[in-house]
Amino acid sequence: MSEGSEGLHLWRNARLATLAEGTPGLGIVEKGVIAARDGRILFAGPESELPTEISKAESTDCQGRWITPGLIDCHTHLVFGGDRAREFELRLEGASYEEIARAGGGIVSTVSATRAASEDELVASALPRLDHLIGEGVTTVEVKSGYGLDTKTECAMLRAARRLGHERKVGVNTTFLGAHALPVEAKGDKDAYIDLVCREMLPAVIAEKLADAVDGFCEGIAFSPDQIRRVFDLAKQAGLPLKLHADQLSNLHGARLAAEYGALSVDHLEYTDEDGAAAMSAAGTVAVILPGAYYFIRETKQPPIAAFRAHQVPMAIATDCNPGSSPLTSPLLTMNMAATLFRMTVDECIAGFTRNAAKALGKLGEIGTLEAGKSCDLAIWDIERPAELVYRLGFNPLHQRIWRGQS
Amino acid sequence: MSEGSEGLHLWRNARLATLAEGTPGLGIVEKGVIAARDGRILFAGPESELPTEISKAESTDCQGRWITPGLIDCHTHLVFGGDRAREFELRLEGASYEEIARAGGGIVSTVSATRAASEDELVASALPRLDHLIGEGVTTVEVKSGYGLDTKTECAMLRAARRLGHERKVGVNTTFLGAHALPVEAKGDKDAYIDLVCREMLPAVIAEKLADAVDGFCEGIAFSPDQIRRVFDLAKQAGLPLKLHADQLSNLHGARLAAEYGALSVDHLEYTDEDGAAAMSAAGTVAVILPGAYYFIRETKQPPIAAFRAHQVPMAIATDCNPGSSPLTSPLLTMNMAATLFRMTVDECIAGFTRNAAKALGKLGEIGTLEAGKSCDLAIWDIERPAELVYRLGFNPLHQRIWRGQS
Ligand SMILES: [Zn+2]
Ligand SMILES: [Zn+2]
Repeated sequence: MSEGSEGLHLWRNARLATLAEGTPGLGIVEKGVIAARDGRILFAGPESELPTEISKAESTDCQGRWITPGLIDCHTHLVFGGDRAREFELRLEGASYEEIARAGGGIVSTVSATRAASEDELVASALPRLDHLIGEGVTTVEVKSGYGLDTKTECAMLRAARRLGHERKVGVNTTFLGAHALPVEAKGDKDAYIDLVCREMLPAVIAEKLADAVDGFCEGIAFSPDQIRRVFDLAKQAGLPLKLHADQLSNLHGARLAAEYGALSVDHLEYTDEDGAAAMSAAGTVAVILPGAYYFIRETKQPPIAAFRAHQVPMAIATDCNPGSSPLTSPLLTMNMAATLFRMTVDECIAGFTRNAAKALGKLGEIGTLEAGKSCDLAIWDIERPAELVYRLGFNPLHQRIWRGQS
Repeated sequence: MSEGSEGLHLWRNARLATLAEGTPGLGIVEKGVIAARDGRILFAGPESELPTEISKAESTDCQGRWITPGLIDCHTHLVFGGDRAREFELRLEGASYEEIARAGGGIVSTVSATRAASEDELVASALPRLDHLIGEGVTTVEVKSGYGLDTKTECAMLRAARRLGHERKVGVNTTFLGAHALPVEAKGDKDAYIDLVCREMLPAVIAEKLADAVDGFCEGIAFSPDQIRRVFDLAKQAGLPLKLHADQLSNLHGARLAAEYGALSVDHLEYTDEDGAAAMSAAGTVAVILPGAYYFIRETKQPPIAAFRAHQVPMAIATDCNPGSSPLTSPLLTMNMAATLFRMTVDECIAGFTRNAAKALGKLGEIGTLEAGKSCDLAIWDIERPAELVYRLGFNPLHQRIWRGQS
């Protein structure tokens, strides 16, 4: 090893999908090399442009494999108690929602099980799900609260989420989603519950610095735009970035509302209209497309992909991993669903799990592309072309995952 | 080990989904044990009924895990040359079928690549796909020809398929599918091509004993009922069991035709009518449901599950793994699709990949259930209830797979 190359490592003889900003398509470099030191990318580009002073460092021969940025799952509910497999089974057998509710099903059952679980148990039950994401090349995952719906359990969920990042080599972004659903004890009084979120839950989360962002669910079955505004006003005051579950089942103009607040992302978006897309574009808000939930609940209204394209709204894609409407832990399958169900292109699918997912977390300066200065988070794939990541169903060609320069 | 227990092995402390015939649902045994010798099941049932003379044998403690019969993928096109990822990508970018054909896409491209591949190459390219099936608990796989469309290549495909069974610990059933599509050199003359199938291809396959069954594709874009009859008449004369791709895109009454011939199965079946279901019931023909192709080609007409239930037609489910319309190598995802897209129940999904899949191969006497006398083919799962196999997306809880008594 030459002088000054300590801690330096090269990945050579690779094909790169850099996703670098300003490059067309996937930012492909056919004969590529990545150099990293101390977990950061020093160089990502063609072998011919590799600075000579670092060209002698210790290196891995990638044997022509493809390298993409490590995948980023920017919308998950990975931490929860219990299981909803029995409810799924009952529903297939023709049980009504009422019968399922009587059998203890629905989100209520997840809230009960989450409240009953210890923080250790929440971590332990989330780890196999996280491991599956990691096994498909995920290097950063966002995890939301929202099954506690009381201050103690919402905080426990966020602490459990943070702990996932200590248990595994993965970046974790936490999001407070107190305004996810109304707990049973609120007896239908949504305003009073939002009072509790604003008066007690969010302040506790802020005091303990448990959340990197604040989210809500704006929908008839959840909270109204005015209720969401109250949470957003408070979060904004505290300097926390915003996200919103909106326009999934109807158009309450949640996309416009979130854009007005300069939210990082609006997620779901099946019922978003042209006006919402335009507002998101103006605000630089990312559209997070969640095809797993669309598939699982057999939705038929598709998100307005063409409008997002026309307005140049960046589109991310995520698993939305959750026990009720998207028990999905495969980023690759999620990409296939985005392509098959919504006709998103291969480039859009891959950008959706890398560059635009980083943007949806407000972390594009740190992760999401293969560019000098960013964290050396890589997914190395045994494929001949990037389209294979999207085309195949139920296949995992991950060769190796690198997080902050380490395998 | 006690006298007389040589070669004997027990799997104890397991929960069994035996799928035994005549038992309700999944044939569940809560405190179960399986005993096997020389690759065959001697006993599968409650611990309390385990014969004392074998109860002292060497045993594996399953720690409460679930055991199902090893999964059977009864409809695949696992052997083929080339790749269709580029075509998938082009289509998402809006290319027309004509443009894709001009770029060398479509089934023609798979036929060219398959003809260009050596038998060794066909085996090598199929193995990663097979390994993925095996990794999810598959112990028997059916593999069809049908991308050669000339005698030499059809035979090479079937030889490659047989070789897969030597390369891995898995049962392989081969099916001759010469009547799959019309090759370019036939210049549109389907009758002349069927002449070739009957005069040369099928006799060669029979002479070399390369096929366990004969299949065809009865559809406007493929072959007419009368053309299929010619192939079936010849196969039947030779004593080969029959299968048929039918009623996928339109109703040519292929289900009725196949039932008339006493076919083992009819596969796809989206456009099958009540009359077809009744005919299949009378003939004991299995309905093989292929949700992967339905999903991938964005079909909207669902197979008549209710009619199959009403007429007590056994339903199998399979991946239909193929490069053009179902690049799917996950039995678990296939089950989820059958449940989510067609509302098949958990029990139907699991029976569809075990007992009824065995029936679709004419091998129910050998495999497909956990019953004394059958091959000891087991899938051991890290789950709390069988519904988890169907409910989750992109997750693999396989703990261990046993084929003919061996891990
Ligand atoms: Zn969500
Ligand atoms: Zn097929």
